[in-house]
Amino acid sequence: MNEIVSIYRRAHFNAAHRLFVSQWSDEENSEFFGKCSNPYYHGHNYELEVRLTGAIDPVTGFLFDMTRLKDLIKIHVEDRFDHKNLNVECAEFKHRNPTAENICVVIYNILREYIPVDIKLRVKLWETPRNYVSYPVD
Amino acid sequence: MNEIVSIYRRAHFNAAHRLFVSQWSDEENSEFFGKCSNPYYHGHNYELEVRLTGAIDPVTGFLFDMTRLKDLIKIHVEDRFDHKNLNVECAEFKHRNPTAENICVVIYNILREYIPVDIKLRVKLWETPRNYVSYPVD
Amino acid sequence: MNEIVSIYRRAHFNAAHRLFVSQWSDEENSEFFGKCSNPYYHGHNYELEVRLTGAIDPVTGFLFDMTRLKDLIKIHVEDRFDHKNLNVECAEFKHRNPTAENICVVIYNILREYIPVDIKLRVKLWETPRNYVSYPVD
Amino acid sequence: MNEIVSIYRRAHFNAAHRLFVSQWSDEENSEFFGKCSNPYYHGHNYELEVRLTGAIDPVTGFLFDMTRLKDLIKIHVEDRFDHKNLNVECAEFKHRNPTAENICVVIYNILREYIPVDIKLRVKLWETPRNYVSYPVD
Amino acid sequence: MNEIVSIYRRAHFNAAHRLFVSQWSDEENSEFFGKCSNPYYHGHNYELEVRLTGAIDPVTGFLFDMTRLKDLIKIHVEDRFDHKNLNVECAEFKHRNPTAENICVVIYNILREYIPVDIKLRVKLWETPRNYVSYPVD
Amino acid sequence: MNEIVSIYRRAHFNAAHRLFVSQWSDEENSEFFGKCSNPYYHGHNYELEVRLTGAIDPVTGFLFDMTRLKDLIKIHVEDRFDHKNLNVECAEFKHRNPTAENICVVIYNILREYIPVDIKLRVKLWETPRNYVSYPVD
Repeated sequence: MNEIVSIYRRAHFNAAHRLFVSQWSDEENSEFFGKCSNPYYHGHNYELEVRLTGAIDPVTGFLFDMTRLKDLIKIHVEDRFDHKNLNVECAEFKHRNPTAENICVVIYNILREYIPVDIKLRVKLWETPRNYVSYPVD
Repeated sequence: MNEIVSIYRRAHFNAAHRLFVSQWSDEENSEFFGKCSNPYYHGHNYELEVRLTGAIDPVTGFLFDMTRLKDLIKIHVEDRFDHKNLNVECAEFKHRNPTAENICVVIYNILREYIPVDIKLRVKLWETPRNYVSYPVD
Repeated sequence: MNEIVSIYRRAHFNAAHRLFVSQWSDEENSEFFGKCSNPYYHGHNYELEVRLTGAIDPVTGFLFDMTRLKDLIKIHVEDRFDHKNLNVECAEFKHRNPTAENICVVIYNILREYIPVDIKLRVKLWETPRNYVSYPVD
Repeated sequence: MNEIVSIYRRAHFNAAHRLFVSQWSDEENSEFFGKCSNPYYHGHNYELEVRLTGAIDPVTGFLFDMTRLKDLIKIHVEDRFDHKNLNVECAEFKHRNPTAENICVVIYNILREYIPVDIKLRVKLWETPRNYVSYPVD
Repeated sequence: MNEIVSIYRRAHFNAAHRLFVSQWSDEENSEFFGKCSNPYYHGHNYELEVRLTGAIDPVTGFLFDMTRLKDLIKIHVEDRFDHKNLNVECAEFKHRNPTAENICVVIYNILREYIPVDIKLRVKLWETPRNYVSYPVD
Repeated sequence: MNEIVSIYRRAHFNAAHRLFVSQWSDEENSEFFGKCSNPYYHGHNYELEVRLTGAIDPVTGFLFDMTRLKDLIKIHVEDRFDHKNLNVECAEFKHRNPTAENICVVIYNILREYIPVDIKLRVKLWETPRNYVSYPVD
């Protein structure tokens, strides 16, 4: 019987965004989201942690090749969102407010299809060192 | 169906304390707790992480307004314990030893009543960068 | 004779920017600055460290009141740049490219007039945890 | 009824290792593990977090004495692996590849026998600040 | 000719203190220092960095044995101030306000006599992760 | 007149080493360097900070292109030392003990020839989060 472990890999990207509900007026957005809804945008260094959970391979001692995981994150998350304006350039956020919660769910959905089905995935996303989000919950 | 996420917010406060069981003598306290029971007190930079778990609001993309969470922690935890002597000035610890475990439970109980009942709460408390506590457990 | 010390205070702000030399064409900017010149902007969590150097006051034991320093940084730097688009909303960067180098010099010049002349000032600015700048040099 | 909490303690050790499956040839190891299988070894600052979960003692306010936990980690983990070559000097890894996953499981098995049976144990091991592992999963 | 380098070693201690000028009344202290002058004390996790500057020994490749430096800090700083009330238990602060500036100077003066005269010494002291001090200046 | 600034870039590599003076016997090495001279090697996650000091280019707002600096460090330091055994595989340390002091000087000498002569260079090298070195001194 093989041990079940979690492995974690960190990555990061920088992006601009504004909090904005497309069915609301600018005034409603500004009232609800304050300076986070500044129409000229602001930005963050997003820090990302991807956790995989599954059985250790008894021969290699790996759950999943970290280099492959690093590359998957690079290709499907960093190259897609790094140095982008999330509201303007990323279709995922045309009708979905780019809150940390929603960005985290979007990244989970992107990565989910590249990870074997018998491996559980969780994504944690730091918007600042003091504010972060994880999805899904255990 | 809305996604269930966890959001995290960090805060901190500085306080003095000593480990002291009120029904024990000074000698018994000193023998059990060592230098942590120094009658003249010592202190820490307590670092706090509050985690909320619940469904993302499909319109706003928020689980809970981070600014409101920051303010709740400021008013009910930081203003209450920052720059205080926990043993002498905080009624919660008159008959409850201010160990990291107990401080963490006390902060949980304080915050619990300000968070909506359908949102799960967890508190993590660092006494030093190498020692910390979380409550409740998953 | 009083000891000369340095004191340090950290702060932060989040902002959007693009690297852009106004006398160059979009193509020239894009060729030189790459994705950092994305016309839709990207952003950062800027971390700031302000260092003051001078003599300890022999009565108070302070070089400068940390609370006052924190407030000066809040009013003159954080309130001015936090959640802003540096290129569009901040006059300092209309004709000065908002590189980390230039932002650091601008913040130095802003704070310099609020710090007593017999106290030396230095500003350190992190654009990411791996890239930062300081001004002036010792 | 006593509250159930988790307490965490951090420690570290430095060691050399190479990824190496003993039933494979050098070429197979090199092809699969790349530079991590360098026959001359490389090394890491391993950072360790031990988590205990159980009920707070209603008198002392402790789940487990942190000083005792620190000493257990020192004696049974740090003294055993610090400044060692894991492949050559540690019998556990003679026939078990010293991946982060396997080192984490080995440390769990070592510590498990020194922790009371009614207290749950989890070990988290950082191989680098960006790569880490935890065992067992919740 | 041997290269001149600086080496750095980190350490830490926890202590209680209050900011208090002994020639002032309680009211004057409270007005000037605010909650930092709370007569029941508060505390900090002080983080310490000791820097030595001098020539590398051409045979050993050391400027100074790090283990010996670690021990000097342990014996002369940590054992002296850890888990202490700086105002009440440490003679150095009977008539010298235990501000971060003054604690830093006191630690420098203590360590200076144990470091060879041809090696320069500098001490950096964190009162919190956002507030720190260094002495002497370069 | 252009402002003089310093810019900093961080990088890292993992390597094995042992402290060993080639003109000493194994016993002498072991007596002087203790477990750091283990003949089977141990290892570290070396963290590197490269600092450049010079004038900001008045047009670009750059002192030096960070992407080029990152690439220089990658090619000349990371690719050379990452996942290596410093004693066995790196000619620089055949007759020079791979202490943190010496590794830092070696990296400085390597990078110095790729940085323009009017730009000052300094290298800082962390062997562990608590032990580090910088060269040259200001």
